[in-house]
This record gives sequence, structure tokens and C-alpha cells, in this order.
Amino acid sequence: MSIISIIGSGTMATAIAGRVAKAGHTVEVVGRDPAKARALADQLGAGATTGTYGAAPAGDIVILAVPYSGAAAAVADFGKALDGKVIVDIANPVAPDLSGLVTPHGSSGAQETAKGLPAGAHVVKAFNTIFGHVLAKGGRLDAFIAADDAEAKARVSTFLESLGLRPLDVGGLHMAQTLEALGLMMIGLAKNGAGTWDFAMNVDIG
Amino acid sequence: MSIISIIGSGTMATAIAGRVAKAGHTVEVVGRDPAKARALADQLGAGATTGTYGAAPAGDIVILAVPYSGAAAAVADFGKALDGKVIVDIANPVAPDLSGLVTPHGSSGAQETAKGLPAGAHVVKAFNTIFGHVLAKGGRLDAFIAADDAEAKARVSTFLESLGLRPLDVGGLHMAQTLEALGLMMIGLAKNGAGTWDFAMNVDIG
Repeated sequence: MSIISIIGSGTMATAIAGRVAKAGHTVEVVGRDPAKARALADQLGAGATTGTYGAAPAGDIVILAVPYSGAAAAVADFGKALDGKVIVDIANPVAPDLSGLVTPHGSSGAQETAKGLPAGAHVVKAFNTIFGHVLAKGGRLDAFIAADDAEAKARVSTFLESLGLRPLDVGGLHMAQTLEALGLMMIGLAKNGAGTWDFAMNVDIG
Repeated sequence: MSIISIIGSGTMATAIAGRVAKAGHTVEVVGRDPAKARALADQLGAGATTGTYGAAPAGDIVILAVPYSGAAAAVADFGKALDGKVIVDIANPVAPDLSGLVTPHGSSGAQETAKGLPAGAHVVKAFNTIFGHVLAKGGRLDAFIAADDAEAKARVSTFLESLGLRPLDVGGLHMAQTLEALGLMMIGLAKNGAGTWDFAMNVDIG
């Protein structure tokens, strides 16, 4: 079991942190608002701690669980403190009215966020295709990931498996564009054909 | 049961036509190469016919089963002959090396193809997230669709159900962008995490 650091204390941070704690990892919650971070750590129990916002996180895997609109600022606030870390980008960079993606042509939120990170940090896209409340319910879900660095991807795969998820590699970090489109598609499906937000995208092999 | 027209006679046209014929519809195959269209109609049996390339198809639902690179030309070849039809766009507009999408920013293959159609034709995106060989195997698969025209979408939904598929509406035709990204993601998954092309994307609700 490892120390897993989570930057953020919102809905998605809470859902992921709960599953991480339940799997036996030690969660470090790092938030701009120390009171909110403390509240989440207390809620998690299981030895969860809080870290100092902007300082080097305790975990080697750092889950960036802030909205896309705040991701660049958060990464800038940490700067060199994230060097050497595996950064898990979970954001769905959707417009406020959920009608489309706000990313530049030929890029993804993950690739944009990566631009602000120190050279020794490696970004892995994950978790953006699982709704937080579905993740919190438990169960073996498919977890699509994309990353350029093979070692970082392997470490996140092992971590996802430890949570009871099935990691499925879709390719390099540029493929985060497809995962973010899938996130938007799931929002469209919830509002249209599925008629519910209570669903998961899974792969039936063979 | 209805007459369903299919423009094209390649791999995907064959897979869809087989399933359509098996469901009891009459397939009209329309191809630029009459011999290939004839061969596919003969292979299908079940009263399958061939139509004249460029003339008005017999079916009210017309499946445009040509590669994206040839879609605009095919639509131009038919011109006004497609007026009033429901056009099912199945293309995955991927680059020849499968590394990305070739569509302009903020658009999809379906939206680009729609620009060449008469005003009375309605485009529905469908079938692009199901591999042809998986479709041909049979079984109840999830079929994501996107379209602007409610009546055309309803007719294609009913048609998909008649094939034993589960239609799932993701929204307006602009959401074809997400379906085409999902098509690319599935290619990435086949080449990476799944290690096989023998899979389907399904939605687990509830």
C-alpha cells in the first residue's frame, strides 16, 4: 500500500479518495482551503492526512482532482514541487453549459495541463470516464487511461487495479482527446438516451 | 419490414447488410461498381436487389457505407436524389495511420457530410462505434446515435432495434464529434490495452 496524494476536496476528489482509502492506501488530501481538506481527511479516516498546498506532496502518485478551469493555476501554484511525480489528470474540460469541449484543436485538457508541469513529472489521464457517484458505489469498472511515459502508465495501472478497477490503455497522452470526448459523450447520453447518470461505460471483450 | 438502401459494398457495408437482411428487411445495394453491388446482393439473398448509383434509392433509410474520404464525392454523385431520405452516416474519419481524426475543429465527419446533402435529407450518425466483424457476429450491442432531426432519429432507433441492437441517443448531430472520437478510442484500445479487435463498448445502466 502507498501514500496517494489528492489535490482537491470537491465531489470527484471525495469519490476517488473514498475508494483509495477503502483499498488500504494512505490518502493525503491537499487543498487550497485547509479546512475543507481537513474535513475530507477526517471523513476518510484510515490514517488520512492533509498536506500543505503548494508544497511537495507526500505521495509519488498525485491525483489532480480540481476542475479543468482551475488546473493550470493549481499546477502553477505547486511548480517544481511536482517534479518527479506521477500526475493523474481526471478533468473533463467541458463548457459550462456542457455543450462541448473547451480545449484547443488537436489537444486535450491533459496535454494542456502537462505544459505547466516540471519536466520530471509525468501525466496520466484517468478517471474522467467514470462518474464520481458510480465510482463511489464500488464494483469493478473499466478505467481508461492514456499516457506517454510507460513507467508512469504502469504504476497508475497497478494503482487502479488495487482499487478494484480494470485499467484499459488507449494509447499515448494525445489519446486523452478521445477520453475527454468520451466524457462529454457520457454527459450527452445521461441527458438523452440513458435518461440517468447512473451508468458506466464498459468494454465487453471476446 | 422495410427496404433499406446501402451505398457501398465494402467490409462495413457487408457486415451491416448481412444483419439487415437477417432481420427480415429487403436490402438494396447501391455501389459505384455494379458488379460488386451485384455480388453483395447475391451473397445476401433474401430478395436483396441492386440500385442505380446516383439515382434515388428505393429505401427511405439510406446507409452511407463508404469511407469518409469518399463520402463527400458519393453525396455529390447522388445530389438531389437523396432529398427526403434519412441518411445514416457510419464513417470513422481517421487519418490513414489511425493516429487521429481528420475533421476540422468543432466539426465531425457527419456534419461535414451533411453539408453536401439536399435540405430535405436528415443525417443520423450510427454504427461507427461497432466494429464490423463484431456486428456480424450477432448479439445485442449498444448502438450510439446522434442526430438533429427528431423524426429521423426515431426512425433509425426503431430500425436499430429491429436489428437486435440497443439504440442510445447521445444528442444532436454535433455530438457525432464524440462518437467519432469514441471510434478512434476503440482503435487505440484495440492496439493497446485490449490487445484484440474483438470487443464492443457497452453501457451498464443502474
